[in-house]
Amino acid sequence: MDPALFQENERTAPRDDSRQYVDIGPLTCEAGGYLSSVTIAYETWGELNAARDNAILICHALTGDSHAIGWWSRLIGPGKAIDTDRFFVIGSNCLGGCQGSTGPASPHPEDGLPYGSRFPILTTRDMVEAQIRLIDHLGIDRLLCVAGGSMGGMQALQWTVQAPGRVRKAFTTATAASHSAMQIGFNEAARQAIMRDPKWREGNYPLDDGPDQGLAVSRMIGHLSFLSESAFAQKFSRRFQGKDRPDFHLDVEFEVESYLNYQGDKFTRRFDANTFLIVTRAIDYFDLTNFEGSEAEYLFVSFDSDWLYPTHQSQRLLQMARDAGCVAEHHEIVLPYGHDAFLLDGEQQGRLLYEFLTR
Amino acid sequence: MDPALFQENERTAPRDDSRQYVDIGPLTCEAGGYLSSVTIAYETWGELNAARDNAILICHALTGDSHAIGWWSRLIGPGKAIDTDRFFVIGSNCLGGCQGSTGPASPHPEDGLPYGSRFPILTTRDMVEAQIRLIDHLGIDRLLCVAGGSMGGMQALQWTVQAPGRVRKAFTTATAASHSAMQIGFNEAARQAIMRDPKWREGNYPLDDGPDQGLAVSRMIGHLSFLSESAFAQKFSRRFQGKDRPDFHLDVEFEVESYLNYQGDKFTRRFDANTFLIVTRAIDYFDLTNFEGSEAEYLFVSFDSDWLYPTHQSQRLLQMARDAGCVAEHHEIVLPYGHDAFLLDGEQQGRLLYEFLTR
Repeated sequence: MDPALFQENERTAPRDDSRQYVDIGPLTCEAGGYLSSVTIAYETWGELNAARDNAILICHALTGDSHAIGWWSRLIGPGKAIDTDRFFVIGSNCLGGCQGSTGPASPHPEDGLPYGSRFPILTTRDMVEAQIRLIDHLGIDRLLCVAGGSMGGMQALQWTVQAPGRVRKAFTTATAASHSAMQIGFNEAARQAIMRDPKWREGNYPLDDGPDQGLAVSRMIGHLSFLSESAFAQKFSRRFQGKDRPDFHLDVEFEVESYLNYQGDKFTRRFDANTFLIVTRAIDYFDLTNFEGSEAEYLFVSFDSDWLYPTHQSQRLLQMARDAGCVAEHHEIVLPYGHDAFLLDGEQQGRLLYEFLTR
Repeated sequence: MDPALFQENERTAPRDDSRQYVDIGPLTCEAGGYLSSVTIAYETWGELNAARDNAILICHALTGDSHAIGWWSRLIGPGKAIDTDRFFVIGSNCLGGCQGSTGPASPHPEDGLPYGSRFPILTTRDMVEAQIRLIDHLGIDRLLCVAGGSMGGMQALQWTVQAPGRVRKAFTTATAASHSAMQIGFNEAARQAIMRDPKWREGNYPLDDGPDQGLAVSRMIGHLSFLSESAFAQKFSRRFQGKDRPDFHLDVEFEVESYLNYQGDKFTRRFDANTFLIVTRAIDYFDLTNFEGSEAEYLFVSFDSDWLYPTHQSQRLLQMARDAGCVAEHHEIVLPYGHDAFLLDGEQQGRLLYEFLTR
């Protein structure tokens, strides 16, 4: 597949020249679907050493991309916990994504039109299968570590049971072995915001005229779940947007409203609605009940203010790892940022992660 | 206004024959709007005593109505905490509502078409003003108590400062002196789900072809905030809807999805989208900073699992009441139901409320 195709619309345009693409061949999905040709977009930083044992794979969260050094800049870079002077760091856009990897907005090989509703339902296993083939392509037999937060954490966990011989360590932050009913509920409300938008057209919309209004609402729902009550209060309080008193209308009055609408509208310029559906579905299906066969060492982190992925879910991971006879530790970090803390905290996560990677 | 008008569409049809209507005349709204003729729908239970000092006004929450003995059946009825054998109990649909009181779906006096975007922005003060006139109509000088949860609690609080001589006691549950940024955010996401639905048409939709899809999503967002994580887990776990395993599609897979979609769709058959906008706006504007001038005795209740209206907001109410020299108490009740607990708990709230009303 020609990488230039991805540049045809803004949503899938690479952010910089460092993005690379690999054709990983056909893929039969766990749920039965079939993709005759799959491209995975990825970026790397640092150098693979001669022993090929210093590679770290970064798995992004729901709306992330391969540019891990950007969205996880507090953890990745020269001298950071994931030290690019020392490690060979790989970021890839997940299968089903819209930032270079084959997803519902990619051209279908038969007619060149977006897959749309023809794109198969995915599971986390499929996403990891695509990553395994990427690692094969890079000539890496065994990863030093696979790391991720939120959805990325689920992929990291899946790696340790799907390819146990190929990963030494797993770092997950703000994640879970499976979504609770509440977590599925938040995803479902966001999906319905998209699917109930008439422009969704059962998934077969032109890329320049998609369900942007519904997608914006889905993002607003997301942002409500990413912050904590106190983070919202500290960020916005009850301040009015650019004024001292309300104007008494239905348009934006409060700063928090302006923020949510801004985030919602901005999201529609970089993200594909069908990717949102496919990827949240994969998250909701994910249901790991044990780590049997895993050879990995685990570091689990959670945040006290993260009510979307509460600490008890990481405590369960710790128990599962120990039940499987794996070396594992869990740390709850006290910070007021809510779920977003896994992206914002470089210091405390960084210290734990550095120690974990280098011991 | 002819009450029969309200029967013209299902959304505003009375549920039973006990609903009454009173014309309370014109109203100039706090935000500057004007309504030339206002009808308030109400119901009563029990008998007003000779001294006219046994009346209790019930204020409903966001999507409630005058039928308090229905939605608050655990607290109201013969032998219940709000004992209809002993008290004269009044439920009314709030100004701006869609269950009999004048609201955006009501016919505009000039052309008989729904007010739609012509309906003025309201504040909690306006809603209480309408209730005061209802109480005048009923010949009640001073209420024994005004009681409400969530939005209804805000009205109860407002009563004590807006008409301090006319209310002896105020009972509020699961409410706040003002919405936090997070609470405004949840309302805003729900409003945007409606306003971004093309069928909203800037508020001027036919009542039988309104923004039902957006309204359903707004209700789903609401239900996400009404339950606690553990309530969701207990109710639904990760069970699939009517099956043992997923079918791998974008339609309903999990029970919690079925529940949210059912609640969303059901809501559109009984509620008006513009009422949702107007009433949530009033809630977000509400910002009581002190109880100066209040003569009321207060009972505040909150629930430990209610993350939408967390206990610290009721603790603040207690402090405000004491700062104003009022007798006040606050109780946090330990129950796993989340915000919905204020509707579900008859026992613990009931005991506190009965003692409060009868001492």
